[in-house]
This record gives sequence, C-alpha cells and structure tokens, in this order.
Amino acid sequence: MDIKSYMDKIGRQARAASRSMARADTAAKNRALEAISKAIEREADSLVEANAKDLEGAKARNLDAAMIDRLTLSRKSIASMSEGLLQIASLADPVGEISDLKYRPTGIQVGRMRVPLGVIGIIYEARPNVTADAAGLCLKSGNAAILRGGSEALHCNQAIARLVHEGLRAAGLPEAAVQVVETADRAAVGELITMKDHVDVIVPRGGKGLIERISREATIPVIKHLHGVCHVYIDDDADHVKALKVADNAKTQRYGTCNTMETLLVAAGIAESILPPLCAIYVEKGVELRGDEAARKIFPKMNEATEEDWKTEYLAPILSIRVVGGLDEAMDHIALYGSQHTDAIVTEDYSKARRFLREVDSSSVMVNASTRFADGFEYGLGAEIGISTDKLHARGPVGLEGLTSQKFIVLGDGQVRT
Amino acid sequence: MDIKSYMDKIGRQARAASRSMARADTAAKNRALEAISKAIEREADSLVEANAKDLEGAKARNLDAAMIDRLTLSRKSIASMSEGLLQIASLADPVGEISDLKYRPTGIQVGRMRVPLGVIGIIYEARPNVTADAAGLCLKSGNAAILRGGSEALHCNQAIARLVHEGLRAAGLPEAAVQVVETADRAAVGELITMKDHVDVIVPRGGKGLIERISREATIPVIKHLHGVCHVYIDDDADHVKALKVADNAKTQRYGTCNTMETLLVAAGIAESILPPLCAIYVEKGVELRGDEAARKIFPKMNEATEEDWKTEYLAPILSIRVVGGLDEAMDHIALYGSQHTDAIVTEDYSKARRFLREVDSSSVMVNASTRFADGFEYGLGAEIGISTDKLHARGPVGLEGLTSQKFIVLGDGQVRT
Repeated sequence: MDIKSYMDKIGRQARAASRSMARADTAAKNRALEAISKAIEREADSLVEANAKDLEGAKARNLDAAMIDRLTLSRKSIASMSEGLLQIASLADPVGEISDLKYRPTGIQVGRMRVPLGVIGIIYEARPNVTADAAGLCLKSGNAAILRGGSEALHCNQAIARLVHEGLRAAGLPEAAVQVVETADRAAVGELITMKDHVDVIVPRGGKGLIERISREATIPVIKHLHGVCHVYIDDDADHVKALKVADNAKTQRYGTCNTMETLLVAAGIAESILPPLCAIYVEKGVELRGDEAARKIFPKMNEATEEDWKTEYLAPILSIRVVGGLDEAMDHIALYGSQHTDAIVTEDYSKARRFLREVDSSSVMVNASTRFADGFEYGLGAEIGISTDKLHARGPVGLEGLTSQKFIVLGDGQVRT
Repeated sequence: MDIKSYMDKIGRQARAASRSMARADTAAKNRALEAISKAIEREADSLVEANAKDLEGAKARNLDAAMIDRLTLSRKSIASMSEGLLQIASLADPVGEISDLKYRPTGIQVGRMRVPLGVIGIIYEARPNVTADAAGLCLKSGNAAILRGGSEALHCNQAIARLVHEGLRAAGLPEAAVQVVETADRAAVGELITMKDHVDVIVPRGGKGLIERISREATIPVIKHLHGVCHVYIDDDADHVKALKVADNAKTQRYGTCNTMETLLVAAGIAESILPPLCAIYVEKGVELRGDEAARKIFPKMNEATEEDWKTEYLAPILSIRVVGGLDEAMDHIALYGSQHTDAIVTEDYSKARRFLREVDSSSVMVNASTRFADGFEYGLGAEIGISTDKLHARGPVGLEGLTSQKFIVLGDGQVRT
C-alpha cells in the first residue's frame, strides 16, 4: 500500500466531512451517538470476538501484562463505552454558541461564536474504548476525526469503527466523519502529523515516549499531556484533619494516575506535628517514603531523596517529602520541579490561599482538595479527550469545549468603516 | 558574540521575570505603562535622532521606499505610541479573572482563572512603534516579552527599550520583563523560536515570507496571521443601497490591509442590477476589475479572471468578481479559495444570514457590514498584537485576552476523591 496516498485520501475525505459536521444540527448528532451506543450494546459478542483475535496476536508478540490488560475489552467495558456515548449525547451542544454580542459605537454588533476546530487526528495505544470515546466527542463537537489506534488493537478498532459508521449513516451524517486508519504501518502516523492541509490538531494519548515523539515531529498543533509531577503543600496554617485526608487521598487513592501527588511539601512550622501521623498512614499502605534531611529527622523510616526524586513522576507507591520554610519556598519548589499539571495547598489562611491560587502556574490549582479531582468528569465537563499540560488553547481536562474555538461574528445594517 | 548563550541568557531572564509579572498587581502594571508613556513623550527628540540614524543606514543599504516609510518615526507616530500605552493602561486587567465558579456534587467549587501565557517572543520588521505597543500589551497581560525587531530599526528599538526599562523600574517591576534582542545576527531568531524551555509562544509580525519561515522552523507554538483573501457575497435578497456601500467600502477604503475584500461574489439573480452601478464606482476609483464570463457579460470593461485570481491577496486596487448561483455556491467558493480571514454576506434574508454566520469557517464572519471592521480597536478589544488566522487558541484580532489562557481552580474544605 502506498501510505502517503492512502493517508492523503483519508485526509481529503475528513476535510470534506468536517464541513458537513460543522453545520450538522444537534438532533442529528445526538441521533448518531444514540445509534452507535445501541449498536455497540447489540454487537457486544462480536466485539469480544474481535478483541480475542487482538489478544491472541498480543500474546504471540509477547506484549507485557499491563499492555494486555489495557487491550482487553470486557463486557463491562463494552457497556461503559455504550453508556459513555449516551452521556455525550446528553451534553449541551457547544457548536454555534454565541457570547459577548455587544453593540459598538459604529452601530455594528460584535460577538463570538463557538465553532469546531475541523479535523482532529487522535493517536493512541492499546485501549480500544478510546475509539468510541474519541469518536463520540469529536462528533458532538462538530469535528471530523481520524483515529490511529495501536496495531495491537486493530481488529477491535475496526469492529467499533463499523458500528460508528452504522450510527452516522442512520443519522444521515457522512461516514468519513470518523475514519480509522486501517494499516499497522507506522509511516501512517508520520503522514497524519504533517498533513497540514487536512488536519487541524493532533491529540496523542499514551505514554510519555509516544507523546514526546509526536510533539517533536508534528508540524500541526498538538494538544498534549506530558506528565504529572503533582504537589500537595501543607501550610503552617493547615487544619490537621484536612491535611491528613487530602495528603493521604492525593497519594494513595490510585498510584498510577497523572493527578496523583508525587511530592509532599510541608511547612517547617507544622512538620513535627503532621509528618508522624501522616507518614504512619503511608507506611501502613506500603508507600515508600523518600525525604530530605529535615523530614528524615522527624520520621526516620524514610530513604534519602535525591535531586532526581523531585523531578520524578513515580506512578507508583513512592512519595518524596520535603520540609520548606513556608509558602514562598513551596511555590519556588513547584515552579522549579513541577510539571504544571495539578498542585494543591492545604491551609486555613485566606491570604496564603489567595496567593497560591494566583501564583502557581499549573493547569489545576487547588485549595484544601485532593489533586485526584483533576478530571473532566469531576469538573463537570461530562467527558474528556485528555488533559492538557500545554499553556495555549486549553489547559487541564479537555472536554467538548476544548475541541472548539471561537470566531468573531459581526452583525450590521450596511455599516462601513470611515 | 556567542548567539546561543546570549539568547539563552535572555530566555532565562525572561522566564524569571515572567513569574514576577504574573503576580504583579494591576496598579503597578498601570504605573509602568503611564511612566513609559510619559518617558516617550519627554524623549521625542532623542527618539527622532535615533530614528535618523536608522534611516541613514536604511538609505545606505538601498532599502525600498515602502520599507523606509514603515521605518520612519514622525512626531505624530511618537505621540500615538505614547497615547497607545495610556489606552492599554485604561483597559481592564485580564489576569486573575475568575469565571464559571460552580459547586460540584462532591462539594468542591470548580472554576477557571485567566493567567498569562508566560514568555512571549515577538518578531517583527521595520515599524519601531511595535516595540512600544507589544511591550505594553505583554506587560498589561502579565507576560514577559522578548522583542526582536528588524536590524534596520535597531537604534530606535534600543532607544524605546531604554524608556520601557525606565518605566518598569519606576513601578518596581523587573526590567527583564521586556527585553530587546540587541544583535542584528539572524541566528538570534533561530534560537528564539526553538527555546522551548524559555519561550511559550511566538508572535511574528510582518510579510508572508517572514511568517511562513517562522512557522516552518519554530518548535514553539506560533500565533500567526498568514494572509487575507476576504470576500463579500451579495445575495439575491440584498438591499441595493447596503450592497453598494459595503462592497465599495470593503474594497476601496484602504487597499493594502489584510481585511480588504479581494473577491466579490454576486448572486446571479441580482448581478444584472447591482454590477453596473457598483463597477462604475470601482472604475471611477481606479480599481482594476477581473471577472468571470458571466460578470464580463454584464460589465464588459473587465479583464478575464484566471484560476490564480481567486487565490490572490492583491493588497492593491484590483478586484476579482464572480457570479454565483446562490448562497451554497458562494460558500463553496469561500471554502475552496478563501484564507479563513474575514468574509461578509449582504442580504435581508434571515435564514441565509443565519446559515452564512454558522457555516463560513473564517476568523470573522459578517452580515451587512464591511470586512474592513475586522480589527481589534473596532471590535472593542482596545488594542491588538495581531490578527490570527489559526484555529487553535485565538482566531481573529488578538488583544490582551489572547495573550492569556485559563487554568482550573478548585476550592474545597478537605474534600477527597472516593
């Protein structure tokens, strides 16, 4: 297969479909989402079958257990894919929303209208549920999608794509609105991330290696999530009970997620009273602690933290702990070592809370709440296509709104400029 | 000079200054703007002197008349630079603005806070007034700026930079918040647009060649304005008087601006009645007309338009004219040949106006108004750093808000995720 012309054709079809999708009415988009949801429920058996083929292939290729876990499509995950699409249908349509429409002294009215981005390329690994989720989000936000899943999930992704097409047809929308790249050739990714004329934005979902490679090579804007080195800072003026709850939950509720705390910062004035009970909780839960000198003096059952620890996203039951002089030292540490993902302060002091919220430059900044809340569902976005650690366009969880932008609209009665 | 380490030093200083600027209070930023404005007024003589040196150099290098015109700093342009800074001071501070703060079922409050982008690199040619304008906009929006003007304006840019630094000092803000690159070596641009760790966004201002080169080579996001192939579509249901006024003004009010109409589309049903009087106006004003066959049948004093004409931004008294079947054909033409900058419909038909507004995918879409209105001042943004023809982040005129983005903030009372 000539990958270049294959991808070019996909790109052209997506661009054409994106014009229909941009003007598709809300009812048609919801009908498609509901039809896809139903088809997925109906075809649960054949999806499990397709997935079995992928799993066989994965075992033959000796893929690791974590990969096989992500690749596995259970009855439960099929039901939640189907349910997720209905949830997307129930969300308000962001497309066409007009805001800030105001009269200007010249008599024209100027406002903003929310519009789709156009064609979105999504590159992901393993998890076949991304195929349905991403298709649903792009569809509802009036975009066309080109989906490039991992070669290990090809059978399953193709089976889901067929059901997506069935739903689009049922609603009178173009099938090319959602296309799955049907080749395992990696050159297809190289084409996808450089087809400037056909693709408006790339959303990579997967490990840091994949995302770094794509950001390096893409000539199209990328909405990306790099990594989460998240902090909780327990201030001198923290409430003890809240500090214990938040710091415990931020680390131990789940170890492998990007919004899990990796470094705990504790003000010197509260370290002696808070660290012993808090560290006891961590130790009991099997969390390995790595502290600076001051922390180890207070709680000796701790390994020594190195410079490398402050920069590390463990994604594991390991926590680095540092005692700091106060708010400024804590914010300096976060600015130097953090990844601008999610950082929280625990304090009862109004002015310090206000400064932390303003000055910490992360996609989510919290007061007296667990970093684990940084999530599209928890934020009320309804669903998320990913979390952005970029500063332009969208920061933090990216939902339907992040797949749109705003154009200006001007209404007049024949006004001209003088 | 070792350009790499020189630029690296500038980048580090900018990054450090950006943290101070992000937390600078509104009063301090306004004090700086007012002090710079005053200093520019006071030093008008020395600015004219510095400009004279640049002009001498430009003449020695045989730069063309248009370039020398853009380079020239008159008393009037100095006064308007000074006045522009006061206008920026009078705008509301976008930084820290909180919106959509809502309680979630978990008890946390989730909202968004507007924050600076960080460090903004601005690359421009000739016009020394950009130095003061861009510095003012970046300062007010809480960003640090690295300004790289053309080598032909170096004396003048450095003189303005000294006054900017004086104003920053007077307000207790770091001088490194606005740095002017003081080398004519083009390698400095190459460094600036690839210093990912130190620079968050690049705004190029200048000719298409400059902008294309920078977008191609930058590894940092670019907010760019490529070109404006703007259309006015006169619908069958247009009011004749409005159509004449809008189509005249859109073309002839100024020829060299990006929001000037380059192609006129006319519905077949109104062409016979509107083209003769309209074309007479153009001919009287010295506009060269290039039409398709149908247009030339109605108004024979027209050259033949070629395929190339539909794609061309003339920036000159030339207009291409095409007769179309109706709204759909007009929108197809705009989608195929337009540059997604600014497009207008003239119609009294409610449903066609509504469709045009929704379906035309340009940064500004207008009904019964001249395309010449697409401008930050006309839109009430107060000032603009440029016009974006990109789809991500900001579309159309980019003012203070376009130099910021929104982070999530979460307020709680010790809530944790379950």
